[in-house]
Amino acid sequence: MRRAVSNLTRFCGGSGFITPGRAPRTATVVMSVSRLSSTSSGRLDVSGIYPPIATPFNMDESIAFDKLTENMQKWNKIPFGGYVVQGSNGEYVYQTAEERIKVVEHVVKAAAPGKVILAGSGCESTRDTIEMTNRMADVGADGALVVTPSYYKGGMHNRALISHFTKVADDSKIPILLYSVPGNTGIDLDPEVIIVLSCHPNIIGLKDSGGDIAKLAHLVISTQSNDFQIMAGSAGFLLPAYLIGCVGGVCGAANMLGQELCDLEQLYKQGKLKEATNLQQRIVAPNACVTKRFGVPGLKVAMEWFGYYGGPVRSPLQPITSEQEEIMRTVFKLSGFIH
Amino acid sequence: MRRAVSNLTRFCGGSGFITPGRAPRTATVVMSVSRLSSTSSGRLDVSGIYPPIATPFNMDESIAFDKLTENMQKWNKIPFGGYVVQGSNGEYVYQTAEERIKVVEHVVKAAAPGKVILAGSGCESTRDTIEMTNRMADVGADGALVVTPSYYKGGMHNRALISHFTKVADDSKIPILLYSVPGNTGIDLDPEVIIVLSCHPNIIGLKDSGGDIAKLAHLVISTQSNDFQIMAGSAGFLLPAYLIGCVGGVCGAANMLGQELCDLEQLYKQGKLKEATNLQQRIVAPNACVTKRFGVPGLKVAMEWFGYYGGPVRSPLQPITSEQEEIMRTVFKLSGFIH
Amino acid sequence: MRRAVSNLTRFCGGSGFITPGRAPRTATVVMSVSRLSSTSSGRLDVSGIYPPIATPFNMDESIAFDKLTENMQKWNKIPFGGYVVQGSNGEYVYQTAEERIKVVEHVVKAAAPGKVILAGSGCESTRDTIEMTNRMADVGADGALVVTPSYYKGGMHNRALISHFTKVADDSKIPILLYSVPGNTGIDLDPEVIIVLSCHPNIIGLKDSGGDIAKLAHLVISTQSNDFQIMAGSAGFLLPAYLIGCVGGVCGAANMLGQELCDLEQLYKQGKLKEATNLQQRIVAPNACVTKRFGVPGLKVAMEWFGYYGGPVRSPLQPITSEQEEIMRTVFKLSGFIH
Amino acid sequence: MRRAVSNLTRFCGGSGFITPGRAPRTATVVMSVSRLSSTSSGRLDVSGIYPPIATPFNMDESIAFDKLTENMQKWNKIPFGGYVVQGSNGEYVYQTAEERIKVVEHVVKAAAPGKVILAGSGCESTRDTIEMTNRMADVGADGALVVTPSYYKGGMHNRALISHFTKVADDSKIPILLYSVPGNTGIDLDPEVIIVLSCHPNIIGLKDSGGDIAKLAHLVISTQSNDFQIMAGSAGFLLPAYLIGCVGGVCGAANMLGQELCDLEQLYKQGKLKEATNLQQRIVAPNACVTKRFGVPGLKVAMEWFGYYGGPVRSPLQPITSEQEEIMRTVFKLSGFIH
Repeated sequence: MRRAVSNLTRFCGGSGFITPGRAPRTATVVMSVSRLSSTSSGRLDVSGIYPPIATPFNMDESIAFDKLTENMQKWNKIPFGGYVVQGSNGEYVYQTAEERIKVVEHVVKAAAPGKVILAGSGCESTRDTIEMTNRMADVGADGALVVTPSYYKGGMHNRALISHFTKVADDSKIPILLYSVPGNTGIDLDPEVIIVLSCHPNIIGLKDSGGDIAKLAHLVISTQSNDFQIMAGSAGFLLPAYLIGCVGGVCGAANMLGQELCDLEQLYKQGKLKEATNLQQRIVAPNACVTKRFGVPGLKVAMEWFGYYGGPVRSPLQPITSEQEEIMRTVFKLSGFIH
Repeated sequence: MRRAVSNLTRFCGGSGFITPGRAPRTATVVMSVSRLSSTSSGRLDVSGIYPPIATPFNMDESIAFDKLTENMQKWNKIPFGGYVVQGSNGEYVYQTAEERIKVVEHVVKAAAPGKVILAGSGCESTRDTIEMTNRMADVGADGALVVTPSYYKGGMHNRALISHFTKVADDSKIPILLYSVPGNTGIDLDPEVIIVLSCHPNIIGLKDSGGDIAKLAHLVISTQSNDFQIMAGSAGFLLPAYLIGCVGGVCGAANMLGQELCDLEQLYKQGKLKEATNLQQRIVAPNACVTKRFGVPGLKVAMEWFGYYGGPVRSPLQPITSEQEEIMRTVFKLSGFIH
Repeated sequence: MRRAVSNLTRFCGGSGFITPGRAPRTATVVMSVSRLSSTSSGRLDVSGIYPPIATPFNMDESIAFDKLTENMQKWNKIPFGGYVVQGSNGEYVYQTAEERIKVVEHVVKAAAPGKVILAGSGCESTRDTIEMTNRMADVGADGALVVTPSYYKGGMHNRALISHFTKVADDSKIPILLYSVPGNTGIDLDPEVIIVLSCHPNIIGLKDSGGDIAKLAHLVISTQSNDFQIMAGSAGFLLPAYLIGCVGGVCGAANMLGQELCDLEQLYKQGKLKEATNLQQRIVAPNACVTKRFGVPGLKVAMEWFGYYGGPVRSPLQPITSEQEEIMRTVFKLSGFIH
Repeated sequence: MRRAVSNLTRFCGGSGFITPGRAPRTATVVMSVSRLSSTSSGRLDVSGIYPPIATPFNMDESIAFDKLTENMQKWNKIPFGGYVVQGSNGEYVYQTAEERIKVVEHVVKAAAPGKVILAGSGCESTRDTIEMTNRMADVGADGALVVTPSYYKGGMHNRALISHFTKVADDSKIPILLYSVPGNTGIDLDPEVIIVLSCHPNIIGLKDSGGDIAKLAHLVISTQSNDFQIMAGSAGFLLPAYLIGCVGGVCGAANMLGQELCDLEQLYKQGKLKEATNLQQRIVAPNACVTKRFGVPGLKVAMEWFGYYGGPVRSPLQPITSEQEEIMRTVFKLSGFIH
């Protein structure tokens, strides 16, 4: 098996981060594709804004690959760092294993050169997650976003989660980002677990959707010696996240406000804090609509307003009501994003 | 498509329980297999004690079908109403779609004549659930236990859940039981949803693992005109559940204390309340060990004590520690089930 | 200070249940008032049905002592074991320390001979709880119901709770019952804590409103050698609670359905299980209305229907809406308690 | 009754924010004490850093007023905006009504000129809260911090909370700040409620301890036309909070790291974002120790390290263990605040 990891001893004193019984890792780091940039320690660079792509469906709930292509042609013109495919906004839990792979493959092909493709490969079991991750790697994913397993809540203690992510990272052909989304899973990845796992040579970062900015700041500090990249999981706190040291954001709202979020990133980097703050403030309420308040059904409706294909959600998700759409429209108008 | 349902108008005044655009149901009820008993209104009778079978794995985590056969040969001698296969205790979330089907098929073949086979067919999406249910029906399942979808917690409101279960029941070849297990899913099926769904001709019952006996009593009363069968989801409140009108129990502890739970049922039915109470009281603490306290990893260890094959759990579940095993052993000793 | 406790060494091997630095307890048990019955080990007998009295207010929110007297005259004709005063249904958190004492004093005087008066004396701090308990004892309370402190949730770990209840019990002139009501406090008293505290000579019982019947059964077994009396905290599971060994119930619904609940108790004791079950089933839905669904505002409205004074709640509690009242009326009608 | 509010019609179109049956408010705004600064619309200016004072106790748990004086003499040398007294860090729930007043009175007298005194006056009932607020005003508090009532969780819906805060604000002699601390109360004040209440002329701000920075940003935008002042409830996200428009912070850590937090504020205001960020990052972990991780018991231990009197907590809070103290000491050392 190809190994995308190396230099174990550099991290955390080589603290035994190999599952017992495995051969020691001695392979040299080889960035999978030279077109992508890497961090100072040679890791895949995942900085920047990433839309977690909404999977487009036809009215019969089959995947609308043509619409996906059209959406990507528009997104490709925006200076995104890359794409997250098969994340929570992609309704990954409603797709079969085959569908998940196919959508990743499609996005890899449709993405503009230089875009990093992060694929959501998490399954409940460790073995399924490893297989899914490597199949997604085989069709071209650059990294994998691995959500916490969550069904047996009582059994998902820190020991189990550390074991799970370590095994997945050990056996994955591509680097791994941890993915904590307690609003969906009911599991909030503990800082201690994240810090331990940040020492693994093949675990390069974290997407945290919990929104606790103090937790993120704590993690930035505690993992900085490991070249660990932390990404905001929502546009609602993107600027504060940059401020405390996050490297980017995976933001549902980037499905339709991608240019604006990239602008926010640039304003921050240019030190134009006042303009950045103004933009951040305008984004908060619309972002809440397409995340916490109305979820993927809201997101898909808003995408239509901005010229993207939204289309239906898969059941059991339900379309938003016309009353909810009216609220959402008002919020977007008041924020000046639609007229 | 074969329809196992009928007589819609008898229930809830024929209150529109057909998904729009579908043909009205006029087919006659045909019990799928004559060997099984039916209720007064002609529904599949699911009364009695059901072990939710723990899926045996080999040390490499592959399914140990030979061990499953051995376990079933022992269980077949116990007067169970039938078996639940691919429930939470079966680690169904850790199995591929193909594995789930194969295990059901194996249990169908290994079950003694007259045992009702209830298969856990729930998936996150409605379409996957329907397909899984019918594939399980095709390999011989008599009924399906359909867990609440749970990933998008904000989207799983009553409207979405009613829609989901209605669609599944509409298209399922076999009768459906609702399955609410908030400890795992974070979704506690609302009484109003259950009462509405109890009117569907192809939804014949409920397994509730929440343990709120007042909720169960309320549901028994509120659904009694619909011939709706409610099953306790744990041995911890089996006798109280019988008392308030439940028809049986799906009890993890039946994997190793099956005869004792069938005894408890008989004592209750014979009006020997004092003996039944004594037995119920002895069962509470051991039952807690193999459910809330130590989960499936605890259950599998305890099974070994009683001559069944337990074996390993699939990762990310972790084996219990030796200290936890010691606690569990003490509890079973104090209750007089082991020496 | 008078000590109502004794015989420490009889319990739990005299396991150090005296706060360090205190004098050993050698006083003899003296039942505070001979009119009350005691258990086999000489403890205050709290078996039976207890209404947790709703505190009546005038329209200006002052306490309507005259209405309290009138209500008690009616309740005194019902074979209650006694009264709980200043419990959650008594809106105790909305009353000043002085008011809490006065209401207890009033109820003591208005109660028929032989009724046990249990006073809710819990405060957030240990010192306030001790003072309140003893002041309530001074005005005639026979026992105290002490709710879990709950403000600093992170700090209310088992060690803190054991320390709190031990200190209160050490210094209380009257016996103590633990009171766990997680729906209000967010703190669910752990079985381990309860079992440890059941060894204290001045802690004689528990009121548990959580509704987890398996937990109650576990506690009944685990504390039976300590003559520990467990009371159901709701009419919704009163019969199952009796069945698994509880000695009575503190039931909000007893404010208006007191005779019916005493009937249920009698039917159970006479072995008329079928009739008891029927009555239990009728009570579930109305009980839910005056507890979980509509709370004290619902309770006070329902009391009016049965000839008791309900009156307003104290702000910030709000009266139920007319729509909610209509729902409640329908539920009570369907259950046959009103016409 | 003196009214500290005015100009109702300026806010929210005079949208009926007077409790029915009350006289219209026409009094002119008079800042209670001229020594304090006011905002552009004439409201009490609460910007800046505020330590929520830990109440010092003697070993017998009585209040150590002399130690309070000593602590304040040190705090008075730090450029705080003022003091919060009787907040969650002040263990207000463990003090009698009389004690709460006395501590406020003591702080008013011991505070350096120009410091704003915000007193925590929240009680469970509306009437008690009004009385407490006005008694605290009478002894010199400039504003009141009113925590959400929380006991009857089911009853504390938006309608109830709006009614409660409106009545308190209507009848309070001093301006009110809303106080949301879901970690303690289990009640997270809804943005909609806050926005409605921000229109009340006597409700001038909010302290939010929830830590959801996107929520705070949303509130800043939504209430800006009402001259509503939002304060971060923790030092863990102070800089991000300033960034998105908060006016200050009520930070437990200011009890011992007051100068550092004031430095952070200055660095932010001077546009020295890099230095501010560095300082913020150093503060996160120590702050977590004295808040979420070890609470008030941890806070009081850490105060001792910095020359303040910490002393014991009141029971049922327990002192931290020596192991926890060691962890805390390590965290403070690693952050460079102690050696």
